[in-house]
Amino acid sequence: MRQIGGGITVARGFSARSVFCGIKDGNADRPDLTLIASEVPSVAAAVFTTNRIKAAPVRLSTAHLRSAVTRAIVANSGNANACTGKTGDRDARSMARNCARLLRIDTRQVLVCSTGRIGVPLPMKKIERGLSLLSGSNVRMGSTEAARAIMTSDTFAKECAVQIKLDGKPVRIGGIAKGAGMINPQMATMLCFLSTDAAISKKVLQRFLVSAVEQSFNRITVDGDMSTNDSVICLANGLAGNSRDALSSSGDFQKALNFVTAKLARMIVEDGEGITRVIEVIVRGAASQSDALKAVRAIANSALVKCAWFGGDPNWGRVMDALGYSGARLREERVEIFYDNLCAVRGGVAIPSAKNLRTVTRKKQFKLTVDLHLGKGTDRILTTDFTPAYVEFNKGE
Amino acid sequence: MRQIGGGITVARGFSARSVFCGIKDGNADRPDLTLIASEVPSVAAAVFTTNRIKAAPVRLSTAHLRSAVTRAIVANSGNANACTGKTGDRDARSMARNCARLLRIDTRQVLVCSTGRIGVPLPMKKIERGLSLLSGSNVRMGSTEAARAIMTSDTFAKECAVQIKLDGKPVRIGGIAKGAGMINPQMATMLCFLSTDAAISKKVLQRFLVSAVEQSFNRITVDGDMSTNDSVICLANGLAGNSRDALSSSGDFQKALNFVTAKLARMIVEDGEGITRVIEVIVRGAASQSDALKAVRAIANSALVKCAWFGGDPNWGRVMDALGYSGARLREERVEIFYDNLCAVRGGVAIPSAKNLRTVTRKKQFKLTVDLHLGKGTDRILTTDFTPAYVEFNKGE
Repeated sequence: MRQIGGGITVARGFSARSVFCGIKDGNADRPDLTLIASEVPSVAAAVFTTNRIKAAPVRLSTAHLRSAVTRAIVANSGNANACTGKTGDRDARSMARNCARLLRIDTRQVLVCSTGRIGVPLPMKKIERGLSLLSGSNVRMGSTEAARAIMTSDTFAKECAVQIKLDGKPVRIGGIAKGAGMINPQMATMLCFLSTDAAISKKVLQRFLVSAVEQSFNRITVDGDMSTNDSVICLANGLAGNSRDALSSSGDFQKALNFVTAKLARMIVEDGEGITRVIEVIVRGAASQSDALKAVRAIANSALVKCAWFGGDPNWGRVMDALGYSGARLREERVEIFYDNLCAVRGGVAIPSAKNLRTVTRKKQFKLTVDLHLGKGTDRILTTDFTPAYVEFNKGE
Repeated sequence: MRQIGGGITVARGFSARSVFCGIKDGNADRPDLTLIASEVPSVAAAVFTTNRIKAAPVRLSTAHLRSAVTRAIVANSGNANACTGKTGDRDARSMARNCARLLRIDTRQVLVCSTGRIGVPLPMKKIERGLSLLSGSNVRMGSTEAARAIMTSDTFAKECAVQIKLDGKPVRIGGIAKGAGMINPQMATMLCFLSTDAAISKKVLQRFLVSAVEQSFNRITVDGDMSTNDSVICLANGLAGNSRDALSSSGDFQKALNFVTAKLARMIVEDGEGITRVIEVIVRGAASQSDALKAVRAIANSALVKCAWFGGDPNWGRVMDALGYSGARLREERVEIFYDNLCAVRGGVAIPSAKNLRTVTRKKQFKLTVDLHLGKGTDRILTTDFTPAYVEFNKGE
């Protein structure tokens, strides 16, 4: 496997076209509507938010995913089309229908995504004008423009791509993603679109995607809030010409997909609203896997722990406190805590010699490792500090 | 029932003596060690943190609570004596023993509480000097000084007292409490000491206290973090001379206890670190009681919802989002949301006429009511906004 440049359009047969249609009153320099399509029939897999309040496009795309063939994704930023009732459903359907007409395909072969403010109906006049522009010559082609078109509070475009060989044939996987607030395990406020030219069945692709998402987008957190619009979609069009059996039997495709999703997930965290540090929280030695997950989640989402990190303060006492209410089994007298490789706590109490913890906690990125010494459960989450800038950013007008 | 002045010493036979012993390098104007005692044998009830990491004094007090008689509470601020291993257990025991000697009672009749930084051993030389000062003439008497002695980041002393009549006899209940960070349902980072001269059995007192705590201290949140030291203790010495039967059969004592604990709980929220607003979140019409609790908790602890409140922004979309991931059953198309009496959302979508929501959300205190229209479950939590000042306050040195 090797990482290559580019993103959603590295796989053969995929194109992305983006335009600005003014959904947010913003500068026309940044597109806000994008259409990603395969020139030949492709299959799709997807993972959507587990939030019970689902945006209209999530409901529509869930239904369209039942189609054996999926050819395109249309996405807008600036408006989430969530909590918009029947109007929202009608608007999402209209977006799919317009794109289908443009591409001369069945409406059910188009998936729809929206991201932005909740509770405001989509400005359909603008969107319709944008959709009509997509067929013109004045569109912005390529992955980077598509990555920019789905940005909301993101500060940089997120792309990643790799190439692997499957029975001698080069196979490419590429993707784009956006963050940057309302980010929590069980799908962040985020969109991620992936494409591959691998020949793969819809069913196998879904299995690989679920596994990749579990280890990447479901292991990041910025603010503990889970959104109504989270969607990860992967299209595969088979143009690489590999044998499906070779793909299923080798672990290489899964590894490559994991790599791309993990990279994109890390970029989302690094671009978290107002953050100054990225921390990988690792729990090992838990009595079970689910205990390990409970423990990493409690630490990674604790407001007090995250505030201390903002100040570069190790404050392992708050980590102990979060462990204590996480629900994970623990014996206080066995707990060990490390900041990178420096041991702060052993046997549940501070190591007096650990004076230089701050040299770690003042870094832009570091690891916090907790060993519960109870079993073999282990898990990890990528999280951030919590800053006044985050609060200022999210206080509204 | 009528509210009266004072706090922990309004009930006959109770005294409080406080001293400054320099646990925090702070100004000698504020005491940091207090001893609350009944001059006659009393019974005790208590509710402690559910955090699996329990501070040494919590473990000791839990054991001492098995004693039929409890005469005194000794408490210090500035150091939580949590995550301090065997040294911590020894230090907590030593505090109890010293107080018992002073009062000429059994060590098991003394409960111990500590609040402050986690993970640093108690400065026992200072504490011992402080304990010896408690028997001298230079102590500060009374409830207010005791309330000040347990303050950490609190900005004001919290006291409340009431008087009721039980079969013609005046019965008093009073208390003190401290907050002000690490505050979340299932016991906040908080201490609350209550005393009453009611004649009541230990068992009945425990039942009343659990019920009162459930409706007060377990229904507040500031930052979603639950502490290792939370303790609510109530002493009852019987000096009012009421009949125990009269107390058990009338609901008056429970009501009075609820009143005092609710008042103290509200003061803790009002004194939350860096907050600018207090919001009562009410969920009604939930499919069950537990669904109602899940829903109020998710809203009251959402970082994004709380940031919006800081800015005086109604942002009901974030409320919908939190409802969606709360785990409570819901039908989007039935949800109704009110800010005070103004309806913002009906049938799951915005009411266009609701232009003046900001007149509510810019107030210092307001109510957010969500009606799920599914059943009869209802619950409420008192919460706050989330501010840059909170983050700055908790970022450490």
